[in-house]
Amino acid sequence: MKHTNAAKIFKLVGAEAVLTEAEDLRKYLTGLSTSFGYVLSDANCSVFYTDSRYLEGATAALKGTDILVKEFTGSVVELLKPYKQVAIPFGRTLYPDFEKLKNTGIELIDSLPAFTSAMSVKEAYELELIEKSCSIADKAFVALLDCIKEDMSENDVAALLEFLMRKFGASGTSFATIVAFGENSSVPHHETGMRKLKFGDVVLIDFGCKFGGYCSDCTRTFLFGDDSRHAEFKKSYQNVLDAHMLAKQRITNGMTGKQADAVARDFLKNHELDKYFTHSLGHGIGVNVHEFPRLSPKSDDVLLNNMVFSDEPGVYFEGNFGIRIEDTVMLKDGKVISLTDSDKKLIIL
Amino acid sequence: MKHTNAAKIFKLVGAEAVLTEAEDLRKYLTGLSTSFGYVLSDANCSVFYTDSRYLEGATAALKGTDILVKEFTGSVVELLKPYKQVAIPFGRTLYPDFEKLKNTGIELIDSLPAFTSAMSVKEAYELELIEKSCSIADKAFVALLDCIKEDMSENDVAALLEFLMRKFGASGTSFATIVAFGENSSVPHHETGMRKLKFGDVVLIDFGCKFGGYCSDCTRTFLFGDDSRHAEFKKSYQNVLDAHMLAKQRITNGMTGKQADAVARDFLKNHELDKYFTHSLGHGIGVNVHEFPRLSPKSDDVLLNNMVFSDEPGVYFEGNFGIRIEDTVMLKDGKVISLTDSDKKLIIL
Repeated sequence: MKHTNAAKIFKLVGAEAVLTEAEDLRKYLTGLSTSFGYVLSDANCSVFYTDSRYLEGATAALKGTDILVKEFTGSVVELLKPYKQVAIPFGRTLYPDFEKLKNTGIELIDSLPAFTSAMSVKEAYELELIEKSCSIADKAFVALLDCIKEDMSENDVAALLEFLMRKFGASGTSFATIVAFGENSSVPHHETGMRKLKFGDVVLIDFGCKFGGYCSDCTRTFLFGDDSRHAEFKKSYQNVLDAHMLAKQRITNGMTGKQADAVARDFLKNHELDKYFTHSLGHGIGVNVHEFPRLSPKSDDVLLNNMVFSDEPGVYFEGNFGIRIEDTVMLKDGKVISLTDSDKKLIIL
Repeated sequence: MKHTNAAKIFKLVGAEAVLTEAEDLRKYLTGLSTSFGYVLSDANCSVFYTDSRYLEGATAALKGTDILVKEFTGSVVELLKPYKQVAIPFGRTLYPDFEKLKNTGIELIDSLPAFTSAMSVKEAYELELIEKSCSIADKAFVALLDCIKEDMSENDVAALLEFLMRKFGASGTSFATIVAFGENSSVPHHETGMRKLKFGDVVLIDFGCKFGGYCSDCTRTFLFGDDSRHAEFKKSYQNVLDAHMLAKQRITNGMTGKQADAVARDFLKNHELDKYFTHSLGHGIGVNVHEFPRLSPKSDDVLLNNMVFSDEPGVYFEGNFGIRIEDTVMLKDGKVISLTDSDKKLIIL
């Protein structure tokens, strides 16, 4: 039986009714991946309104849960007629949809804060799904290493890694896999292309998959063949790894996102690398691969037990090479536990 | 050099400035896939503001085009200070972002109609990318057929098909691949799972990839082994195929979406199958796998030459089987040309 969260969110919001359309929030409420639908909860019940493409599947999946499934393709305004007050997620509602609801005269309340706090602190079943998603990503990466050969393109490597994640049980990727060879690794979000692998290349792979609708996110950087040019790379690699590990040691329950970010950033500053660390330390991970909390220089988000986020310091030397080391981690009893955890000692293939 | 559309949209909109944030619209303007940024055009120039993760890559890719690239992580309100009037896509703007801009006192104009008309009628370079995306999907499907074996799971088949599309040059899928075996095929948007393939199963595969940022979309339904139970399936298959082909014959420049939909729907009605055709005939395809125009019973969208859309009638018998036959097609000189075009004669593996 699916885990559902419609009743939990309804209680947290405290409005007469809660209406949810955004795809990821709907997935959180129903446990189902669908491209169309509304969830409407009131004190009596929760109903998932969807179209004929999802009706049979959703009805079977939600049987025995506290969410009813009904076919609906009309205007959402009709559904709200019985209510004087409805909560919607303001920050996830498009302007014309907001205006349409406002014009009904129904009092609108923001449900997004409730979603943000509920979704960021994971329940046991969510942690299980994320752990499985992470272990699939780990297993696929280790299997991939045996298959990487000279002259493969970035796209070939991405194809193989995505195949392995699927084969090990993933339902797909959590984002477009980034494979960057050589100088391409200096672009933090490189677009995977046809560059071929040569002896001595730095290889950066940022990847993740979905399992049960939950994401994993992991980055590894390694060498395809070693030669004398890599002294600077190796020194920087060790510094980034030390920053990554220090963040894991120091991050704790109650810390803010900016305090967490500063652990890694200050360490890299002491090694004169902070100006090459051009992004933030991490982001929350769950139904979405980027969600609350943010671990960045400006973030006041408070890190709490059972939150899941990335720890991903990186340094980028334009036109030369880049290094990023990322794990998906969780906070448990005030300590960081790594959920992706393949070996981070420098690999030289 | 990248094809860009910022100047084209600026001219079409006719406002003092045009500001675009939505990811797909930004991709259309810049030709680049990025997860953060704004494009701001005025009579002097267009600037793509993005963060450090994309700066180096975007600068290299847009060199020599009419779009400048600048790093920016501040509030978008700052960028708009020089203007009295700015166009944004109302229907793609979140309510809080809209309010923030409205509160500046700047006159806001809707840019979405310009995007919709420009993006739906494809230019030659866009048609080339879609044709390539479609030919990759075709090639992968044909290669897949040789590899399908008893006891493979739906997930195994999806993994292999996605691998083949990547291997033949795709940058990823255009949506989560749907593989449905046996009774699962009666759910139009089945969630690919661990159901294993058995002799005599109906197999429905809905798949597509991206090439150069443009999508393909194709569905094939076939039999894995034939037996005496399939008489009804075969009859319905021929009816759906005839409806699909009739739509290709009859759809023409100037027809509305509902007229196009009616071609297939009326044919299925004559065979008493219309009540099993529970979705619309098709949707536009481009940067997005679902975009303008809609081919549905309520659509007044007008089909024009150089539009690309799907032709996908389907019938679904709950708990038993489903059939959908879909090609990505384009309108050229008033005639439908199939862009995905692998054999649609009933395949029996």
